[in-house]
Amino acid sequence: MFVNPEVRVDFGKTPTEAMEGFLSLAAQIPAFEFYMPSSTFRELLNFIDINKVSGELFTILRQKSPGRHEMSCPAVLFYELVEDMRERINKGMRVAEKAVRGAAKGDEREIIQTLRRNYREALREGIVDSIEDMDLIFLAKELDALLVTVDNGVIKWAEKFGIRWLMPTKFKDYLQSSIKNSKSHAIK
Amino acid sequence: MFVNPEVRVDFGKTPTEAMEGFLSLAAQIPAFEFYMPSSTFRELLNFIDINKVSGELFTILRQKSPGRHEMSCPAVLFYELVEDMRERINKGMRVAEKAVRGAAKGDEREIIQTLRRNYREALREGIVDSIEDMDLIFLAKELDALLVTVDNGVIKWAEKFGIRWLMPTKFKDYLQSSIKNSKSHAIK
Repeated sequence: MFVNPEVRVDFGKTPTEAMEGFLSLAAQIPAFEFYMPSSTFRELLNFIDINKVSGELFTILRQKSPGRHEMSCPAVLFYELVEDMRERINKGMRVAEKAVRGAAKGDEREIIQTLRRNYREALREGIVDSIEDMDLIFLAKELDALLVTVDNGVIKWAEKFGIRWLMPTKFKDYLQSSIKNSKSHAIK
Repeated sequence: MFVNPEVRVDFGKTPTEAMEGFLSLAAQIPAFEFYMPSSTFRELLNFIDINKVSGELFTILRQKSPGRHEMSCPAVLFYELVEDMRERINKGMRVAEKAVRGAAKGDEREIIQTLRRNYREALREGIVDSIEDMDLIFLAKELDALLVTVDNGVIKWAEKFGIRWLMPTKFKDYLQSSIKNSKSHAIK
């Protein structure tokens, strides 16, 4: 969310500004707890200037890994993952064969670029393929939390686990609306 | 086991004969229950002549699927599978790139054959990649059974699940030894 330019724009121009923008809203809703997997946070550190982010970051946005060794998942999802990968692997093979067949005729560099793009699309898009992806899912599950992410593969899998998710483009509205609600409750 | 020529030779020359050979031994150990996942049995039907196999097959070798929707697996194994696949996918990409780079110089047909072999090795070997593989693991787990298979990917994953497995080349010895034991018990 803080890295994707189209979505973070709601909170700030750069990842660092977006993080600050988010924190200033989040600080106004003490009833909410915000979590980010430690693995995601570690990745985020490559994009934000940690010296420019206020110390509030660590009180408002908690870093936590899911209990990877304690949680479990239904066997049927293991099946789904294996089946999905199997189809993608076959597709990757066809992509590679096509590239080899084209190599005699076209420009090698261009063909390799196309190969990389098509291969990545076949094997990576719409699937969970990293520790960070899994952490998002299992942490949301463990905490029974509302998931906010721009990753469609994670969203697709979150649904299999019965995890609620929020359209990332509505996250700012969601926070502002919650601020308003918590203030009107306070007045009452 | 009944399909792999090197291993089935202990029981018979053809898959059908191997199945008969196995059944004649298995029938002498009434204390044992033998199970095969329904998905594996369906595959086996492509290799054996069902009309030549005695009706004992269905009383001695039970077909059963694991409860795919009832069983669960530790989250950490989900992570391991995703991590393993990620590395393999990257390797598959390098295999494909190498093939494209060689395509300008070599024989296209030969290069595609090498590509297929190397790609399959990178993405398929030593991993669980089918419903049949998963069924073997979850059925063995569900029944707390001793697993007999020649598939190294399945064995590797069975160990993660704490499933006991038997070297397939020792399966005949194992059965014969069990027959001897059960007879000597009967005499006592």
